[in-house]
Order: sequence, then C-alpha cells, then structure tokens
Amino acid sequence: MTADQFDAGLLAPGWTGSRAATATSDAAYLRALLDAEAALTRAQAVLGLAPAAAATAVTEAAESDFDVRSLAERARSGGNPVIPLVADLTKTVGPEFGPYVHRGATSQDILDTATMLVAVRALEPVLADLDRTQRALARLAADHRDTPMPGRTLTQHAVPTTFGLKAAGWRSLVLDARDRVSAVRDSLPAQLGGAAGTLAAFTAYGAEDATALPAAYARELGLRAPLLPWHTLRTPVADLAGCLALTAGALGKAAADVLTLSRTEIGEVAETGGGGSSAMPHKANPVRSTLIGAAAQRAPQLAATLYGSLVAPDERPAGAWHAEWEPLRDLLRLVGGAARDAAELTEGLRVRADVMREHLGLTHGLIVSERLSAELSAVLGRARARELLTRLAPRTFAEGRSLGELLADEPALKDVPLDDLTDPARYTGSAGALTDRALERR
Amino acid sequence: MTADQFDAGLLAPGWTGSRAATATSDAAYLRALLDAEAALTRAQAVLGLAPAAAATAVTEAAESDFDVRSLAERARSGGNPVIPLVADLTKTVGPEFGPYVHRGATSQDILDTATMLVAVRALEPVLADLDRTQRALARLAADHRDTPMPGRTLTQHAVPTTFGLKAAGWRSLVLDARDRVSAVRDSLPAQLGGAAGTLAAFTAYGAEDATALPAAYARELGLRAPLLPWHTLRTPVADLAGCLALTAGALGKAAADVLTLSRTEIGEVAETGGGGSSAMPHKANPVRSTLIGAAAQRAPQLAATLYGSLVAPDERPAGAWHAEWEPLRDLLRLVGGAARDAAELTEGLRVRADVMREHLGLTHGLIVSERLSAELSAVLGRARARELLTRLAPRTFAEGRSLGELLADEPALKDVPLDDLTDPARYTGSAGALTDRALERR
Amino acid sequence: MTADQFDAGLLAPGWTGSRAATATSDAAYLRALLDAEAALTRAQAVLGLAPAAAATAVTEAAESDFDVRSLAERARSGGNPVIPLVADLTKTVGPEFGPYVHRGATSQDILDTATMLVAVRALEPVLADLDRTQRALARLAADHRDTPMPGRTLTQHAVPTTFGLKAAGWRSLVLDARDRVSAVRDSLPAQLGGAAGTLAAFTAYGAEDATALPAAYARELGLRAPLLPWHTLRTPVADLAGCLALTAGALGKAAADVLTLSRTEIGEVAETGGGGSSAMPHKANPVRSTLIGAAAQRAPQLAATLYGSLVAPDERPAGAWHAEWEPLRDLLRLVGGAARDAAELTEGLRVRADVMREHLGLTHGLIVSERLSAELSAVLGRARARELLTRLAPRTFAEGRSLGELLADEPALKDVPLDDLTDPARYTGSAGALTDRALERR
Amino acid sequence: MTADQFDAGLLAPGWTGSRAATATSDAAYLRALLDAEAALTRAQAVLGLAPAAAATAVTEAAESDFDVRSLAERARSGGNPVIPLVADLTKTVGPEFGPYVHRGATSQDILDTATMLVAVRALEPVLADLDRTQRALARLAADHRDTPMPGRTLTQHAVPTTFGLKAAGWRSLVLDARDRVSAVRDSLPAQLGGAAGTLAAFTAYGAEDATALPAAYARELGLRAPLLPWHTLRTPVADLAGCLALTAGALGKAAADVLTLSRTEIGEVAETGGGGSSAMPHKANPVRSTLIGAAAQRAPQLAATLYGSLVAPDERPAGAWHAEWEPLRDLLRLVGGAARDAAELTEGLRVRADVMREHLGLTHGLIVSERLSAELSAVLGRARARELLTRLAPRTFAEGRSLGELLADEPALKDVPLDDLTDPARYTGSAGALTDRALERR
Repeated sequence: MTADQFDAGLLAPGWTGSRAATATSDAAYLRALLDAEAALTRAQAVLGLAPAAAATAVTEAAESDFDVRSLAERARSGGNPVIPLVADLTKTVGPEFGPYVHRGATSQDILDTATMLVAVRALEPVLADLDRTQRALARLAADHRDTPMPGRTLTQHAVPTTFGLKAAGWRSLVLDARDRVSAVRDSLPAQLGGAAGTLAAFTAYGAEDATALPAAYARELGLRAPLLPWHTLRTPVADLAGCLALTAGALGKAAADVLTLSRTEIGEVAETGGGGSSAMPHKANPVRSTLIGAAAQRAPQLAATLYGSLVAPDERPAGAWHAEWEPLRDLLRLVGGAARDAAELTEGLRVRADVMREHLGLTHGLIVSERLSAELSAVLGRARARELLTRLAPRTFAEGRSLGELLADEPALKDVPLDDLTDPARYTGSAGALTDRALERR
Repeated sequence: MTADQFDAGLLAPGWTGSRAATATSDAAYLRALLDAEAALTRAQAVLGLAPAAAATAVTEAAESDFDVRSLAERARSGGNPVIPLVADLTKTVGPEFGPYVHRGATSQDILDTATMLVAVRALEPVLADLDRTQRALARLAADHRDTPMPGRTLTQHAVPTTFGLKAAGWRSLVLDARDRVSAVRDSLPAQLGGAAGTLAAFTAYGAEDATALPAAYARELGLRAPLLPWHTLRTPVADLAGCLALTAGALGKAAADVLTLSRTEIGEVAETGGGGSSAMPHKANPVRSTLIGAAAQRAPQLAATLYGSLVAPDERPAGAWHAEWEPLRDLLRLVGGAARDAAELTEGLRVRADVMREHLGLTHGLIVSERLSAELSAVLGRARARELLTRLAPRTFAEGRSLGELLADEPALKDVPLDDLTDPARYTGSAGALTDRALERR
Repeated sequence: MTADQFDAGLLAPGWTGSRAATATSDAAYLRALLDAEAALTRAQAVLGLAPAAAATAVTEAAESDFDVRSLAERARSGGNPVIPLVADLTKTVGPEFGPYVHRGATSQDILDTATMLVAVRALEPVLADLDRTQRALARLAADHRDTPMPGRTLTQHAVPTTFGLKAAGWRSLVLDARDRVSAVRDSLPAQLGGAAGTLAAFTAYGAEDATALPAAYARELGLRAPLLPWHTLRTPVADLAGCLALTAGALGKAAADVLTLSRTEIGEVAETGGGGSSAMPHKANPVRSTLIGAAAQRAPQLAATLYGSLVAPDERPAGAWHAEWEPLRDLLRLVGGAARDAAELTEGLRVRADVMREHLGLTHGLIVSERLSAELSAVLGRARARELLTRLAPRTFAEGRSLGELLADEPALKDVPLDDLTDPARYTGSAGALTDRALERR
Repeated sequence: MTADQFDAGLLAPGWTGSRAATATSDAAYLRALLDAEAALTRAQAVLGLAPAAAATAVTEAAESDFDVRSLAERARSGGNPVIPLVADLTKTVGPEFGPYVHRGATSQDILDTATMLVAVRALEPVLADLDRTQRALARLAADHRDTPMPGRTLTQHAVPTTFGLKAAGWRSLVLDARDRVSAVRDSLPAQLGGAAGTLAAFTAYGAEDATALPAAYARELGLRAPLLPWHTLRTPVADLAGCLALTAGALGKAAADVLTLSRTEIGEVAETGGGGSSAMPHKANPVRSTLIGAAAQRAPQLAATLYGSLVAPDERPAGAWHAEWEPLRDLLRLVGGAARDAAELTEGLRVRADVMREHLGLTHGLIVSERLSAELSAVLGRARARELLTRLAPRTFAEGRSLGELLADEPALKDVPLDDLTDPARYTGSAGALTDRALERR
C-alpha cells in the first residue's frame, strides 16, 4: 500500500471534518482495539487471572504508536486486523507479559468490542448535534407558532398550516431519533466469548467462573455486560442500524422541506450562507440540506446490509460479520455529518413569514375552500354550498378575482362574515395548540 | 380488472395460509379502513360533533359488503383507495347521515389508521408464534444443556460448544425480537390530522377543541393517541420496519444454522417432516428453514424502502407515502410466515447428539488444541508446548491418529491427564452456565 | 386459506388493472407453469423420447382449469407450487400418459421457465408503453424546442434551458430503458437441467444426447436455449433486475421533474386530469407522477434482493431462489404500472410556455449573469466586469430592478447590446441543437 | 481535520492494497479531476477557443501537487471538491492563463468526468482479475470434467454431478460478469454541459458550435462522447451499478460454494494458504471466500443506492448526485478486491476428488434413486418399481447396507446390471458434454 491509498474525505463533504468523522477514523478504531485489548488484560487481573503488572504493562504498551497502514496490509491474510495487532502489541509488551495479551480471546471479541466503543464515542457528538437541532427547532416553532403558510399535499396547496407546526413536527422527529439513539447507545455491550463463545479458554487459563469475566471486562470499558457472547447474535448491530437509519430519515425530512421551501419560486426559507457557485455568482445553494438529503438517501441501504448480517451462521460467520464493518462506520459517519449539518441548518434558517403569507393567496382563496364548504353548508345547505363553490372555483383563475370577492357578490351570503371565512391566516385550525403540545415534549 | 388479477399466494409458500396472511389481506385492509371510518364518526359523536344516530348508522353501514375489486380499480384515479371507499360508504349510509362519513378527515388519516390496525392485528399471531418458538427453544436448550458439538467459525471446527448454548442463543434473538415487536405494537398511534395536519376542518364543523378528537378516535380503535398528526412524521412506520427486519433476521439466523447442521454430510439436526421431492424420493428437504431463510433475505430491503420513506416532503408526500403500503404489508406477511415456520421448525427439530459427539472427533483432537496449548504450557513452558503441538498437528491427519494418542507417546507428559484434556466433551467452558443464565430471561 | 386471503390490488393503484398486472397474476403464472409442462413433453416427443400422443394429451390437459388456491396451499409442504401442480396435471392427463408429465425435470426447471415466460409476456406491454412515452416526449421536445425556461440546479435558478431539451433528456432515458429491456427480453432462456443440472434423468429415460433437449424445449416456448442449466447461475434474473430498476428510475426522473414543475408556485406543467381530493375540490393532484415516483422509490431495493440471490449455493439454494419469486414479480408490476402511467402522463402533459417565460425573470436577470460575466469581460476586462456584476447583483432584489436596467445606467456599456445580452430567452446555448441531435436517436 | 481522519483500509481486508484500491483512492480521484480540467482546456484549444499556450499551462499545472486534505475540508462549503480545486488550480496556472481553467464548465462536468475516468481505470484490474479467474476455472473444469461429486439441492444430496460442471458454471458467471463490465467500461462517456446542460457558456466564450466541444473533450480523455449532457440522465452510473452488482454476485456464488465444500465435514475443496487463527493453530480458514462473500453481501445495497439516484430532479439534483459518489467508489473497491481474491482463490483451489467420490456413498445409494426409478420401471413397471424403492430406502440407513446390495436380493432384478445402475459415478448425465460446451465459450 502506498500513500496513494489513503482517504482524506475528498468525496465526503457531508461528514469530513466532523467530530463523528474523527471518532470513526482508522486511528479511532485502532485506539478502540487497543483499549479493548488493554481492558481484557486488566479485567483478568481484577479477577486474579493475570498479574497486576501484566495489566499495567499491556495498558501502557497499548498507548504506543502502531502502524495502521501495516496493520491494514497484514489484515488481509487472516481477514481481520486484530491478528496482526495482537502480534505487534505482544511484541511491544515484551516477553514477560506478552503472553497475557489477548489471552483467551478471539479476534471477534476485540473487534466487536472496539466497534461498540467507537459507536458510543461517535454517538456522543451525534446526540449533541441532535440536541442543538431540537433546540433550534423549538425556537423556530415558538417564534412562528402563528405564522401561517400554505400546507402542501402531493405538491399542491391544500389548506393553510403554520410554520410553527412544521418546525414542531421536524423537532418531534429529531426527538424520536434522539430517544432511540440514546437508548441504543446505553445498551451497547462488550463482546467476550473466546474462540466459539463458550469462554472455555479462560477456564483453561485458570478461571473458576469464566462467566464473571465479560462483566468485569465491560466495566473496564464503560460498556454493558452481555447476557451471552453475541458473535452471531447481532442485535446490538441491528439496533444501531435501526436508530441510525431513523435519524438519517428524520433529518432528511426536514432537509427535504427546506429544499422545497427554498426553491427560487417559493423562497419561504433560506439557509444562512448558502454555498456559492463559481459559474453563477447570484446562486445561494442550500448546501447543508443537500448534504443531509444525500445522507438520508444512503442510510437505508447501509442499514439493510446490517440487518442482513443478522443471518450469521455457525459460531462465527464467513462473510456476514465482515460485511458489517464498513457499513456500520459509514452509517455513523453519515449520521454524524448530517446531525452537524442539521444543527447548522436549523440554527441559521431564515424564515420569510411575509412570503409565506403572500403564497396563501396563490390559489385565489381556494386554499380555504374546505372551510367554506363546511361553513356555507350551514347557511345554504350542503348541496347548494357545494354547487356554488364548484361554480366559482374556475372563475377565480379565469377572472383573477379571489373566491372571497366572488362570494361577496352572492346576495344569500350578505350576512356571512366572508372576510373572516376567506382569510387563510384564520384557517390554521389547531396548529397553534398542537405546536404548544409538541413543545412540551422534552 | 378481471379475476385473472387476483393473487392467491401461489408464489408465497412462506406466508400463504398463515394467520398473518389473513390479517393482511385486501379484505383485512378493507375491514380496517371501514373500522377507521366508523370510529371517526363515533369519536365525533362522543365529543358532540355528530349525532349518536350518525355514529350508529355509519358503524352499521361499515359492516356491509364492499367490492374490493371495484375499489381497487377506482383507487387509480386519485391514487388511493379511500376516495372511492368514502363514496361507497356514504352512499350506503344514506342521505341523512351520509354527510357524517369521513367528515373533516383526509384519505391519509384513514389509510394510516387502518394500516396501524392491520399491523396490530398481524403482530398478534407473530408474537404468539415467537412465543411458541422461544418455548420450544428453551426446551431444546435445557434438554441439550450438556450436549457437546463442534463450534464452527468461518466454516471450520474451532473449539467445542454445546447444542444447548446454540439453542439458547437462538432463543435470545427470538426474545430480542419479541421485546421489540411487542414494544412497537403497543406504541402504534391512530392518525388524524385533516387535510394538512392542522385538524382545521373539525373546527369548521364545530369543534371547540379539535385536539381532543385524535385521542377519542384512538380510544375507539384501541390505538395510541398521537402527539401530533404524523402524515409526514413516519416514526411509527420506521419502528415497524426496524422490529420486523430484526425479527426476520433473528429467525433467519436459526434457520441458517439448521440448514447447515442438516446438510447430508453433517446431519446433526433434522426438520420433522422435511419436504419431499418428486424426482428423488429419499430427499427430506429442510423446507421450513428454507422459507424462513428466503424471508430473511428479503426483509432488510423492504425495511430499507420504509426507512427511505421517512423523507416525506411537505404535508403529504407525492410518492414516499404510497411507496410504504405494499412493502409494509410484505414485511408483515414475511415475518408472519417466518414466525409460523419457526414455531413448527423448533417444535419439531430432531437433534442427533450422537452425531454431534462423533463430529467432535473429525479433527483428530485438534478441536481442543486451544486447551492443550494452555494446559501444556503450564507443564512444558509456552514455547515447548507450542512447538510440540505444531509438530504433532499434521501427523494426526497423516497417520490417522488422534492428538491424544500422539501426545501419549511423549514421555514428558506421562503425568498429564491426557484423557481428560483431550476429550472435546470436557472442553465446553462455560457453555452450561451461560445456557442457564440465558434461560433465566423470560 | 379463505377468500379473505386474496389480493385484488387494493394497495396498488400504481399497477392494478394494467396489462402487466394481468400478465403477472397468479393465473398468469399458473398458465406459464402449465405451458412449461406441456412444452417439456412436446419437446421430448420431438426428440422421440415420448409418444406424440403423450405430448398431445399433456398439452390438452394443460388447458384445463386448476385450482390456484389449492395449489398455493399445498405448495407450502414442499416449498414450491410445482410439486402439487405436477400431481394435479398428472391426474388430469390420466394413467396412460400421466407418466410423461414432468418426466426428468425438477420443479425449478418448470418454475424458472414459467418465470421467464411471464417476464417476456409482461415486458411486452412495458415496451409498448415505453414506446408511447418516447413518442409523446419526442413530440413535446419538438414542439418546445425553443421554449425557454429556467434551468434549476440544487433547487435554484441557474441559467436558462429549454423545455425541449428537458423533454429530450427524459426521452433519452426512456430510450436507454427501452434498449436495455428489449435486449434482456430477447435473451431470456428456458431452464432445463433436471434434479441437479446434469440432465441425467433424460438419459435414464432414453435420450441419446440429452443436451439437445433444452434447445428443443426452448423452441417450443419461444425462449432462448440456455448454454448451461442456470439453477444457480442467475444472470437472467439479475439482468431483469438491472433493466427494470433502470426503467423505474428513468421514469422516476421524469415524474420527479413533473412533480416539481407542477407545484402550485411553479405551475409550468400540469398533468391532464389530475386526481381530485374529497376535502379540497380545487386540488388537481399530479397522481400519475406520484405513482411513478412511488414505484421508483421501491424498485432499487427489489432489484437489490434479486442481485443478492446471485449468491446461490450448491446446485439449488435453500432460500436464495425462493427469495426471487415475489420481488421479481413486484418489479415487473411496478415497472408495468409506471410505464402505463408514464404514457398517460406524457401524452397528456400540459406545458405552460408563458409561465416558464415569466419565471425567467424571477431572478431579476441574474439568471444570465454567467453570460454577462463572459461577455462584459471582453468589454471591460475580467476584473472590472466581475466587480460590476458583484456590485449590481444585490441591488436587483433591493430595488426591484432588473440587471439589464441597472447595467443600462453604466456609461461604459452604452454600445453593448444589453437587450440581447440580458434576455434569458437568448441564452439557451446549444439547447436547440442538442434537442435536434437527441431526437435523431430512434 | 487532523491526520486522525485518514483511512488506511484498516476495516477493509477485502480490498486494501488491491490495484482497484489504488485506482479509487482520494489521490486517484484528485488525479482524475485534474486530468479532466486539463483536458477541458486542451479541448477548447483544439477548437480554437483557447490559446494553445493556455492548454499547455493548465496541463502542466495539473501535474502539480495539490493538498487533498485541504480540498476535502474546503469542499464542505459548496458541497463538492471541484470548487476549491478550481481555485487552487487557477492560482497555480497564474494570471495569464488562469482564466482558461474550468472555463464554461460546471463542477459536475468535472466530477462526473473524473468519476468515469476512475471507473475506467479501476475496471482494468477488475477485468484482468476476472480473466485470471476464468482461466483458472477453465483449467479446473477441464481437469475435473469427469470428477463425480454429489449434487446438492436445498442442502441435501440430490443426484451426482461433476466438479467440472460446477467449475464450468462458476466460469460461465465470471464470463457473464466480464462481458457486462467490459461493455459498460467501453460505453462510459465524458460529461460536459455547463451550468445547466446547455453548453451556453461556451458559446458566450466564443464557440460557434459548442456541441463539438464534448466530443473533443471526450477524445482528450479516451472516454465516449455523450449524446447529451447527462447531469441528470444517470444511465452511465446505473450501468456501472448493474455490472458491478452482477460481478460481486457472480464471484459470491463461487465463494459460497467453496465455503460449503470446504466445511470441516465436507472438505471436498480447500483454499491454498487458508488464513490462520491465533487461538487455534489447526485452523485453515477460507479467508479469500469469506472476503468475497462479504463483498457480495454489500454490493446489492450499494447498487440500490445508485439506481435510486436515477431520480435526479431538475438540471442538477440536491442530494441524489452527492449520494452517488461514495457508493460508486465502494462498489468499485469491493468488486476490485473480490476479483483479486477470486483470482487467488481459483488459482490455488485444491480439489479432493477422492473425498467427493467417497461422499457419493453417504446416502447408501439413494443418490441414484432417480435413475433406478426410471430404469427399474422399464423392467418392473412403474408402480412396482416405485413400491420397491420406497420399501428399500429406509432399510439402507437402518441396516447400513447400500441400495445396490438390497436390490441384488430381489430375484426379479437378477438380469439387471445393478453394479452399473447403482454406481453414482456413472450417473452424471450430460455433465461432461455440458462442461465441454461451456468451455467453448471464450
């Protein structure tokens, strides 16, 4: 391998430079692998299976520099990077305590544990950015609790809604994501089973009750103690897949709305500091939303690969396990980048209440036809109300007059408060109350 | 549409005829759509927004027969089946109370609510079959707590394990699935928001506080009251996707192991009543495992489509919503069929402890080389022990003698209890204790 | 199974009632299975391996009615529908020629062959609808060769383009899809290998050279003769997956553009006969585009499942094959429905050239800033031109004046033909020539 | 970004260090981006739109070192790496010819073109390794044309086949992959359209007929000239997705078979130099097959993401395009690594004809029951033959005697050549002829 084979994030503006990227780099995995090895020796020392000095020696050696490129190259032979790492670490520890390195463990114990460590560490900035995002959205929802705008269904204006309710909805999804990510993060277990998940080698090395070891090991690492070795019981990975796919989609929904609402013709919202274009100086592209959207398009398929790896035959599968490593990292990175972008997007979002208000008139009042249909039925009877609206609807566009104006011509409606009934801003239903209720959720 | 366009499950031996299939048929969806419409009118009556007689009339009319084929055909025009159903139901209710049908609602309110009803109803047999499965696996695990067998990693014999631990692991996955499915089922909300999710029409029809209506509606249906209308906040669908994909994978893991262990050359387990072959009368195919495996291969991609639909623009998306309907049903069916097959598979699984025992000898004792490496190091020192094992290993296959026999020739080991050390059945580590612990989980 | 388990397309407005739906129904599969069985006996008769009367008897019996529901139920035992079908067909043929039914074949021979027949039959209407679509698009492209409209990138107006070029691009994708679908359709092979793909049983039944049989069989069915039995060499299925996913995406691109361009605020195009809404009489929803869009969201994951089934172990896989059946049918249906909708959509699309023209002014002339940057550099020098444009750009929005007006105030530009340079309709580059070139493709 | 964010392949033993990895590194993309920029200026010079000296200056500057980390960081602002690269390259070229850098192009022109260059370059080693693989498989097929082995269906012995036919089948898939990859590679077009695909800026910069430019540009790069700019007509990317997913699956099929056949209990084949295990010195893991299998599990979902990006709205989509970059690279890498591993696997595969032969006896002769059913029917009549076989089958296992022995006890069969009929090695049907035919394909 030459330096040519390093990736520096050139194709990844979505996640490059994020804290999640740092937490999931090769260096971070190497750090976690070494943490796992050191914790294993320490846990054995705690249970009297290794001398305390061995634990110290391994822990100190695990702070040394190891050559990630060399490890990557040598991983090819046995199919995983733990095998060469154990060799290097053992050598660093030296002849006296070297035999205590990795003792009783299998490569998967270390790699799975390291992966859980990486996940916990990468989810921290994700949760922090989700929190920034939800707070920004709470502010937007509160500020625009009563800002009316067109509600759009199947791309068409339907009835009015408020920007507050929209922002509250986005926030509700972000909270759903946060709750699931947080619960999964707290559940992630250490992995320890030995060659085939029976902990047998630890007994061979002298443990009275080897089942105490996984818990001791987990404690060293701040992970949960596993009920069973989970070499082929991949619930933790599937749970990560689920909560990350949900998070990507939750952020993707908000991004999709921002993309729509910031179209040149709509312009109801705008990203702060939209990305420029070399060719077209006037353009302010919604770059943050674009990159979030790209992450949301990719996440479900990455999660699918991880769900597929639940089918893990035998005591260690020949492929299904290996197929997890990069997709799980990719998901952590994509979601980490998307959460960062979502925080920036929502904290900087410019909302143009005047443009929203103006757009409520684009259908010449038909945006409140649902209301008129209900209210005029009370006055005219259902059939006559419907007939009237059906007759007037096409005239609005043809004559360029609003539905309110046309209705005002109808003698039968002279006592009806048409100004009120035809004002889209006064037909937002329970949007305000729903927003309030949604904001009570913490 | 002619009768030619009906599906009767010809391509679906995995789920045809299951209770989940019945619970997800077109007829079941139609039933749920009608239940949703009737509950809507009843909920309005409860809140004084409709006469009690209207609620009765709609509820009764909803028990009538409607032509599912005709509805399917007419759904094409507006893009969903609720539009023609409302027309038919309104007609059935008659002129007096017809106006109370669907009043204030949007198609998505009804279809989403019906989908949640269908999901709840389809998950009932799923949970029952998962429970049968976990009980059968608990029995297998207890019965075979101490049945040794080869542990296999990357397709090769590694160290011994027990069939009890394997069954306990399968059960652990099934319990993970059960817990997640059960939690999601209990969380599924009714949907009610009106045209754009503001509940505005209900106010137009006289509600003082329309936000009370969704809860009343949910109560009528036994679903959870939603915090917000979730037309484009699709967490419930994503949660279903996640728990169903996990369940398919959990069952798929057990099925994959059964497929491997019932290979002609292995034959450690066998399905009861394996499927026959017209051409080859001797064949007993592992059909239940095969069909579970097929479901597990499909589920992740179906879940991916549902996660993808989280990106639901506007107040109702033009496509993302429609893309959910069939995949969610497919997932419910596949998992329903797989759970049925898993119950039959595990209840009928024949376990051949003698064959397992015999296979422990296939590596001429090398299956305990890990143990010997540990134990002989204590006697000979690490380097010498390793040298000895490395030297003897190729001789086992070449000479057709077991490692134990070859070691017995070594004078230095004459005081070592080689019979014990080289007996694979005595190198199952904590398999028994882990099995016990896993069986404590309920 | 009760009638409750029939599907009639209630959840499938996208494909229900289409010719592709008819061609992929359970009845159509049953028809194809019977065609395959009859052809097998006929092919054996052609080669002298069965009496001509047997071929006639089987062919006639294959025209009988068989109970698809019963077959579906009985398929569960052996895991595929061919096993019970052979029993029923043999019985129908009667004792004399019954033994010639299915003789030498395996279930997969028949089911794979039937699937290829169904695919060929379902692709016919797909190709017809793709042809209707490309012709409609050719007309639109020709008619609007010089209709200028805003080109949009990352949701923002970039530079002008033409609707003709856009329609020509859509057509180009449709032709790509057509070419690939057509090539794949012409390549689909019959399947014949016997129990494990060696054709051995045919030899046992007397064939001198059994390798002649697959070709004879394929001739009977109008399919391609296979080079090898492909029970686990699934290139034909993968090829179908690829061309169908491409077609769904190609149509999805056009649908996505129509959805955007028919937004209430944009309104540059409109579907004819947009779907209505019960609640909102003014709405004309872009239903055809919506349903195409939903198909395009689902197709890639269905294709992924089929690509995944390439990994088909042994001589017949335990699951990977079964996992193909429904997804392949789903893909054919989705694409069949989407092609039908695309034909209707494009044939009926209303294009509002005036609205497009008007939107070219939305950026106050900045939509031609790229051009001005180039052309004014020639006059003022690059630095000065850029400085001028950068200074004037914000003034356009602030003062509500167009860039052209502001530039006209600049003395240095008094000899520059600003009317021409700032007219977006005159900055469509090679759009016309590219459209012409694209329309030459047939 | 710190050095911590570099990836060196630690999690990617499947593709690290391969030629495809080198061809798809960030450095390789940067090289291709620079090649694309240089070619653009050269093409303009060829058409007289730029001075020859500018072409030289840009081409020379494009050979300079650029800081990939800095580019990656700065890509975040505008969402793609071309924007900062143009700035750096322009600066390097200097004031005189700097204005000719990227003139008239848009970022997507360069990034898409570079991606096609990378694909062409990465497919070269893929095709070379596929060729090595097919040659190795041709040798195996020829060498083992007549090596009988059990044919396995649904995991159970069915009827005999040959290893030659199996290897010929694997090769046939590899040739299918090679043909598709090769055709796609030859079709990959350069991208050139300018800001919205109209080539307008080139006209503004003086081109008489800008449509000549893309072809000139493609010629400089050895790519195909595009019919139209394909910013949102993503057939080339979808074609790559399809042929790469097929290749991964084709190799995955062979790997899956090797994994099965090298199981400890089966041992009919073995990888040369199987990967070791630190814990278990006797293990020889099928690492090459494992890593190929892992690639095959991931490829379909990566392809799905690329197919999904066909739905690319407007003249440049906000997300769908960005979602392509990493998955396409991942696919190239995975397939590149899998092809390398497949070449090594097949060149080194050890085949144990004796073990295969021995396994033909595992079913006590039932593996030829299909044949006996056919041949004995001719002697005994169909009903009696079937009755006899059904009666004897269970006795074979119960009594440990072969079917041949039991049949020899039947007086009615004394003239039947039972030795021949019951020899599995003589019931391989047309396996030899099919192998020959398959090997004729080049």
